[in-house]
Amino acid sequence: MALATQSLEQLCINSIRFLAIDAVEKAKSGHPGLPMGAAPMAYVLWTQFMRFNPKNPAWFNRDRFVLSAGHGSMLQYALLYLSGYDSVTLDDIKLFRQWESNTPGHPENFMTAGVEVTTGPLGQGICNGVGLAMAEAHLAAKFNKPDCSLVDHYTYVILGDGCNMEGISGEACSLAGHLGLGKLIALYDDNHISIDGDTAVSFTEDVGKRFEAYGWHVQAVPDGDTNLTAIADAIAAAKSVTDRPSLIKVRTTIGYGSPNKANTAGVHGAALGADEVKLTRENLGWSYDPFVVPEEALNHFRQAVTQGAATEAAWNQVLAAYRTQYPEEAAAFERYVSGKRPEGWEKSLPTYLPEDKALATRQTSEKTLNAIAGVLPELIGGSADLTHSNLTLLKGYGDFQKGSYQNRNLRFGVREHGMGAICNGIALHNSGLIPYCATFLVFADYMRAAIRLSALSQAGVDLRHDP
Amino acid sequence: MALATQSLEQLCINSIRFLAIDAVEKAKSGHPGLPMGAAPMAYVLWTQFMRFNPKNPAWFNRDRFVLSAGHGSMLQYALLYLSGYDSVTLDDIKLFRQWESNTPGHPENFMTAGVEVTTGPLGQGICNGVGLAMAEAHLAAKFNKPDCSLVDHYTYVILGDGCNMEGISGEACSLAGHLGLGKLIALYDDNHISIDGDTAVSFTEDVGKRFEAYGWHVQAVPDGDTNLTAIADAIAAAKSVTDRPSLIKVRTTIGYGSPNKANTAGVHGAALGADEVKLTRENLGWSYDPFVVPEEALNHFRQAVTQGAATEAAWNQVLAAYRTQYPEEAAAFERYVSGKRPEGWEKSLPTYLPEDKALATRQTSEKTLNAIAGVLPELIGGSADLTHSNLTLLKGYGDFQKGSYQNRNLRFGVREHGMGAICNGIALHNSGLIPYCATFLVFADYMRAAIRLSALSQAGVDLRHDP
Repeated sequence: MALATQSLEQLCINSIRFLAIDAVEKAKSGHPGLPMGAAPMAYVLWTQFMRFNPKNPAWFNRDRFVLSAGHGSMLQYALLYLSGYDSVTLDDIKLFRQWESNTPGHPENFMTAGVEVTTGPLGQGICNGVGLAMAEAHLAAKFNKPDCSLVDHYTYVILGDGCNMEGISGEACSLAGHLGLGKLIALYDDNHISIDGDTAVSFTEDVGKRFEAYGWHVQAVPDGDTNLTAIADAIAAAKSVTDRPSLIKVRTTIGYGSPNKANTAGVHGAALGADEVKLTRENLGWSYDPFVVPEEALNHFRQAVTQGAATEAAWNQVLAAYRTQYPEEAAAFERYVSGKRPEGWEKSLPTYLPEDKALATRQTSEKTLNAIAGVLPELIGGSADLTHSNLTLLKGYGDFQKGSYQNRNLRFGVREHGMGAICNGIALHNSGLIPYCATFLVFADYMRAAIRLSALSQAGVDLRHDP
Repeated sequence: MALATQSLEQLCINSIRFLAIDAVEKAKSGHPGLPMGAAPMAYVLWTQFMRFNPKNPAWFNRDRFVLSAGHGSMLQYALLYLSGYDSVTLDDIKLFRQWESNTPGHPENFMTAGVEVTTGPLGQGICNGVGLAMAEAHLAAKFNKPDCSLVDHYTYVILGDGCNMEGISGEACSLAGHLGLGKLIALYDDNHISIDGDTAVSFTEDVGKRFEAYGWHVQAVPDGDTNLTAIADAIAAAKSVTDRPSLIKVRTTIGYGSPNKANTAGVHGAALGADEVKLTRENLGWSYDPFVVPEEALNHFRQAVTQGAATEAAWNQVLAAYRTQYPEEAAAFERYVSGKRPEGWEKSLPTYLPEDKALATRQTSEKTLNAIAGVLPELIGGSADLTHSNLTLLKGYGDFQKGSYQNRNLRFGVREHGMGAICNGIALHNSGLIPYCATFLVFADYMRAAIRLSALSQAGVDLRHDP
């Protein structure tokens, strides 16, 4: 059956599926279900929308991709291999989940080029994605000129039910909606299955409506297993909405194609097993041996190599023009991206002598932040609604808000977990930005109070009454 | 001015406000703003709806009250004192925030009778409230009879902007909506102010719509500073909706009555200062000295003492009838509430000998849970979507779901933080229930894998390839 009956699109999508199936089968562990279900949306996103250069994964202006549902890591490895990244070869895929391979169970940004952020702990990836989009928005506002869009990329996230159940994602997505991050586009792999089985046992909220409440643009693709046009149209529509982040709720079938395990938790965290792999091959008309990708599919994916080179080359021309027209800004931009700090910046650091009057830690922190803010324009950050308590304001540098993304004080609200993950995302944008964040001093305050009261008590002061 | 110009209601509400103002002023620290703004809703709730007996704070069938915005603790202490609880006297209020007083900066359930749960870390209280409501629902389903509602109380929560920004509240409230906890009623003190100032800097989502997405019944009271009838009507309507939890978004003014500090972060975490206290007294027509409560107001609040005694007495008659008609269930119920375990339950615990075959920790846990589940019907719990991984199922005891609250397996979804806080709430219902919960084994798995692989590696096995 196979070839004759399959369109090129189906060949490509099934190539993703079977790389995942076979790699998990070989490793005897992993999650085949998500890659099997999310392959169609990933195929559309990576071949029709994502701008990247497989031969230069670090190209600055690439679209960022985050697989927030990191347990489905084989989806990402399959995409990297198929698209022509050198970081993931077919041999690497055969070593999925093996000791020291670059295809670990969950994607690790420091191991595998093309993986932007480490994912796995559910909800974190989408929050990192918010940070990536904030970094892009900041740099675009800072460096772009009316006649020159030097910084201009999207951040795409695939997230799952687990990501949406975790509170941390609510924190960051509420903030993303507030900030109107129009170039953040999240595809929700809505497959109704988590490890405990049908999400109906615990998760029946209206996720789309929740994101609308956050201020997101929300769309639904009810037939995400088969309707590639609908997926593409939704992504295009999401791109056209520039004042709000977008959520596309794509209804899929976890483990699509497996006759006995599709739509069950059985494909969530375990290999299909030899029998079911055979049945799935039959069911999807896949006559290829394990780890064999049909040439047509590979060639189609690999167009990313020439396309990516051309896209980067075009951007390099933009950069060259920018250099000519805006030499000062270009120098600053290139320093940012290089990760180098300005010569002698450390001379701005405050110095202290043993005889200096003692200062609270937060006061020395404030002094330091504000001493270096001028010489390190890449310093950006804030606190979880405790700015005047933990003294984290960069004085005179304004609030990062919708319409003022060039500013450097981030207002996280009472969202400590989201804040941490967002700052990690900003750092992992790898554009030289130095994020900082801060939260409660309460524990320290309590400790200080306890120590002081203890001392007073030992000195005979009756603490039951006001002094 | 004062008396002549104030209705009894205003006298009562201002009594709450000035107890908070004066206590914070005396302590020179604390949060006067929330009590000043939330006093009207608290007055309506405590005098017109809440069923409790101040002279027996532990009365089983009392309505539970949680001040999730625990930093506004003086609201709760004022209510406890005014309502006639012996645990908080006027002297205690004068010792607000003092060492070892029973009026600490944040309410502590183990220090102050009438405080159901410790609050302060934002978002936790509402999650504890979900746990309290789940405990009520479980016990009602287990013990109530068509002719006898032995277990029948509401859980009321006052929560603030910070609670709603924290992701943990989203986790628990999504689950509460899923479970349809109709006797959970949350009043959202929507004052638009957090420590960083106007919540417009970070929090502009539509909270009501978000809760609707969770499946809650949502109402809004736009004039919560003044419209007591609207507040009362909303609470009554919330009570009448029995198949969903209710959120009432009450628009208030933080620091209401303070001419210069109302509606600012200045009243969030600091005393008003002597001058502003004076101006606030003038503005609200309050001629009483600090800590003086007008007799009419105190008498009105203190009706709770006779009412509460009558309410408890009526319930005791219900219990007596239940004892007669359902002696076996009554004995079980009274054992639960006593906190005593059944005689000899520990004999059901599995025993092990040194020579027994080793079992994984989670397997011994599973064996233990299921060995005691029969003799300890008060054991109730589950996991954050890892039931078959961390082996936490009580076999044969069904899922706790809407329509089957008598069951004992809790399905938390991928919501670890909410799960922990919910289980604390169940424990703090103080009705003998023993909650348990569980999450990831991943770290342990990684450690085990790492140790095993390290051993294999030392034994010369090439781990780069499949064994």
